[in-house]
Amino acid sequence: MFTLGIDYGTNSVRALVVRTADGAELGTGIVNYPSGTQGVLLDPKDHNLARQNPADHLFGLEKSIKLALAAAKKTKGFDPQKVIGLGVDTTGSSPIPVDATNTPLALQKKWSGNLAAHCWLWKDHTSIKEAAEITALAAKIRPNYIAKCGNTYSSEWFWSKILHCRRTAPAVFKAAYSWVELADWIPSVLAGITDPKAVKRGVCCAGHKALYAADWGGLPDKEFLAQLDPALADLRDRLYEVAHDATASAGKLCPEWAKKLGLPAGIPIAIGEMDVHYGAIGSGVCEGTLVKVIGTSTCDCGVVSADKTVADIPGICGIVKGAILPGYYGLEAGQSAVGDIFKWFVEGVLGDVKLHATLTTEAAKLKPGQSGLLSLDWNNGNRTVLVDPLLTGLTLGTTLYTTKAELYRALIEATAFGARAIIERFKEYGVPIDRVVCAGGIAEKNPLLMQIYADVTGCTMLVAGSSQACALGSAISAAVLAGAHKDFPTAQKKMTRLKPGVAYKPKAANQKVYNQLYSLYRELHDAFGGINKAADLSRVMKDLLLIKTSARA
Amino acid sequence: MFTLGIDYGTNSVRALVVRTADGAELGTGIVNYPSGTQGVLLDPKDHNLARQNPADHLFGLEKSIKLALAAAKKTKGFDPQKVIGLGVDTTGSSPIPVDATNTPLALQKKWSGNLAAHCWLWKDHTSIKEAAEITALAAKIRPNYIAKCGNTYSSEWFWSKILHCRRTAPAVFKAAYSWVELADWIPSVLAGITDPKAVKRGVCCAGHKALYAADWGGLPDKEFLAQLDPALADLRDRLYEVAHDATASAGKLCPEWAKKLGLPAGIPIAIGEMDVHYGAIGSGVCEGTLVKVIGTSTCDCGVVSADKTVADIPGICGIVKGAILPGYYGLEAGQSAVGDIFKWFVEGVLGDVKLHATLTTEAAKLKPGQSGLLSLDWNNGNRTVLVDPLLTGLTLGTTLYTTKAELYRALIEATAFGARAIIERFKEYGVPIDRVVCAGGIAEKNPLLMQIYADVTGCTMLVAGSSQACALGSAISAAVLAGAHKDFPTAQKKMTRLKPGVAYKPKAANQKVYNQLYSLYRELHDAFGGINKAADLSRVMKDLLLIKTSARA
Repeated sequence: MFTLGIDYGTNSVRALVVRTADGAELGTGIVNYPSGTQGVLLDPKDHNLARQNPADHLFGLEKSIKLALAAAKKTKGFDPQKVIGLGVDTTGSSPIPVDATNTPLALQKKWSGNLAAHCWLWKDHTSIKEAAEITALAAKIRPNYIAKCGNTYSSEWFWSKILHCRRTAPAVFKAAYSWVELADWIPSVLAGITDPKAVKRGVCCAGHKALYAADWGGLPDKEFLAQLDPALADLRDRLYEVAHDATASAGKLCPEWAKKLGLPAGIPIAIGEMDVHYGAIGSGVCEGTLVKVIGTSTCDCGVVSADKTVADIPGICGIVKGAILPGYYGLEAGQSAVGDIFKWFVEGVLGDVKLHATLTTEAAKLKPGQSGLLSLDWNNGNRTVLVDPLLTGLTLGTTLYTTKAELYRALIEATAFGARAIIERFKEYGVPIDRVVCAGGIAEKNPLLMQIYADVTGCTMLVAGSSQACALGSAISAAVLAGAHKDFPTAQKKMTRLKPGVAYKPKAANQKVYNQLYSLYRELHDAFGGINKAADLSRVMKDLLLIKTSARA
Repeated sequence: MFTLGIDYGTNSVRALVVRTADGAELGTGIVNYPSGTQGVLLDPKDHNLARQNPADHLFGLEKSIKLALAAAKKTKGFDPQKVIGLGVDTTGSSPIPVDATNTPLALQKKWSGNLAAHCWLWKDHTSIKEAAEITALAAKIRPNYIAKCGNTYSSEWFWSKILHCRRTAPAVFKAAYSWVELADWIPSVLAGITDPKAVKRGVCCAGHKALYAADWGGLPDKEFLAQLDPALADLRDRLYEVAHDATASAGKLCPEWAKKLGLPAGIPIAIGEMDVHYGAIGSGVCEGTLVKVIGTSTCDCGVVSADKTVADIPGICGIVKGAILPGYYGLEAGQSAVGDIFKWFVEGVLGDVKLHATLTTEAAKLKPGQSGLLSLDWNNGNRTVLVDPLLTGLTLGTTLYTTKAELYRALIEATAFGARAIIERFKEYGVPIDRVVCAGGIAEKNPLLMQIYADVTGCTMLVAGSSQACALGSAISAAVLAGAHKDFPTAQKKMTRLKPGVAYKPKAANQKVYNQLYSLYRELHDAFGGINKAADLSRVMKDLLLIKTSARA
């Protein structure tokens, strides 16, 4: 038997055919979104804006699945009729304004030219003011709403975006009957659901992005929403009452899409989750194992049994029951930019994409501390643990001899320090982290970065066995739903693995230097991040020079 | 009548034939030093090391003068026999270990391969520890010694370098009968002086670099030196008792060099001064006029009448009676790197020298504040007002969209903020600054930088009329010494001018933004520079984003 996992990324969508017995990956289909700049609709006047065309999502859905099935057919024993379920993951929060027939406004001629009518991509930061307003209101009248998301509601999330639409594109807001997360919308399309209220919503997006919790009766109450804007309170009636974990089904494959794809009609469709959450499942997340999905940004996922009590952890973006694995609290943290920072430096500043390889080679020759540089990884703000999009990047320690390879390495190290801040915060609050499994292109392809992460965090860094962990996780969810395995742990045991023979272990000598550098990183982090408002930074540059001298000796 | 000015820079030496009547520049000869990297002997293992080969100085002396004379001969009425004097300026502090015949050790076969036996170039920073030791000892037992140099003795200066030689190259130290500043040694060569004790020393190097002051009987006393190292106290006997201002002569042109150069024997040689000091004279320095020589680094020179009292100005590198103009206190401040920072970024990091022009064009299109960036100009430490070589460069405010042109402009702005810090410090302590005259290649060729300097400092920026201000100043000194003019003010009036039609005036709208940015610069400056040890930097990144948003609106 087989299942299909469909993974919607920022620039492309991939479909993956997986054998439920052992997780073998039989065929992949990847489709780049045709619209915008690498699939993202941008506004040259506003760097914060990032949207996506739902037409690209539909185009990619059909094409990627067909490509994956065609590729899988080369394997003996595969037959599309043996596909027993589908799972979908997407970026998030990426909400789409839809009409009363569950059709995105952007697909209607009238609205197709209006960027507000498209999918508001996760990394859209136009709603910074609205996020601050929601945070302030919640802090005042509903502190429990934000206690599980680091006491800060993000500009990347559901309500910030919708409120910003209401304020800046009122006609679009008015035309929208409802708003559906991309992760919920794709399954609803496959299931042929034409009523937004009938769309099965996943608790993953709901809980992490829309302040949903069963504890307080679902979405934020109307009184709260009305204080932001009465129109939001009205909208609440047209959203949803209940959100589901991955034990529920999003529906069954409708005849129209079954025919289009050449798959059996009526097979179950898993609840949609965010890419990194299904990616965590596909990477073997379980209690004690932190999964880091390292890409343009990172997402750090952990789980704690729902039987236990999880403290409100300051600065952790989300603690949501059922969000990743049913029966567990899903914990999510992350860094707003990782690969994006390297890309910016190499392609944006140095202007030569080929330099990635050269600089990696050069940077690998450097010893920890020998550059004398220290950077903050905040070029796209800080998601965890400061939860502040209004922070920016910093590099200090430059001399007249600083090389581009040194700057490149300092940026890698900065992201490693950011990663350590997250791990330390989890541990401080009793979340066990016995091992770290990394997924994503950077984890697979950049041994230098992985070793630095091991040296900086003091954790052995393992790599997920699949390079398509998100799609694999979606396929696992479909396999459990379809009954191929009795539960997620069993399915994960059969269907996931680690990359064999790969384990980046911390080197004691490097750890020693990085402990010193991390302590300086924290001084800058706390000073510019507002934790320490009486900072003595007079030693930072001097200490870096001492570390540098010692490293070069 | 004519005089010759000979200007020893970091990478080359130039000779200039000047008509004493009107300052007309008749001929120039430029010779690049043949040794090392662009004339600087480097140690790949130690970026702090920078030496120069005295053989290059001699080679360049003869060749540059011959080239200048040959060029001047094309002007009707010029005849080498009408040259009535010579003046020399050099970098400093650039001391040379010499033997008892006034011959640099490096010119002897035995020592030529030893970097410690060469000229210790001004920008050699190997002596950071020794500088700190001298500062500490002076603070303890001779606070007056360092009160006029910002209470900090620099690693670039005479005693630091000699003490470092004693510690790290004791054989060279032992072989050296004495040490002579390059600015004193070249005139002594032309004068045929073969006894180091007979070399006429200028108060410019002595006062600014060797803690010399008539007030305390010349060089530091033996008790002080002995506490650093008894060998330094012994050395004092083989140095000098008295140093001279530019009313004194360094000697007369000896027959041997007269013959070699084709000049009249016996014409007077002016006292050697540091390049920027004679450059200040060549740019028209007088009370109320600050001269900024803007090159790889900057030097800011002012004068205050010796009849007045000048306070000890914290952080100002030197206040020395007679150092620039006879009859005045010479005040010197500076930035350890300016052009060097742009060179580093464009050539060192971006790796493309051609980008200077492109980036200047791109950066000129940006409005103040619109990049959201803020940099510190400390890639080579901070000379004024923090007097701390152990500071490094910093850039913050980077996002995923920051461009190289924005980074380039931020570096220019950083040097402008550093320039403002110096001007404000002078004014705070009552040094009048009514106008600013800039000299040096950058001042002439970079209108973008000059406008930014005007906007940041609020001062109109004028440009010196000669692009060879240092050599011109040397020639002026020779002219006064030879009696062509009765005194320096008269000579300056006749022989110097401003670049006609050039005056960069502050623009009010830009000043407003730069005042905000300067205030943030000072926050960083004071926090990392150790002035504010309880800094609240939590607003810096946010305020920059506000300024950015406002600039883009």
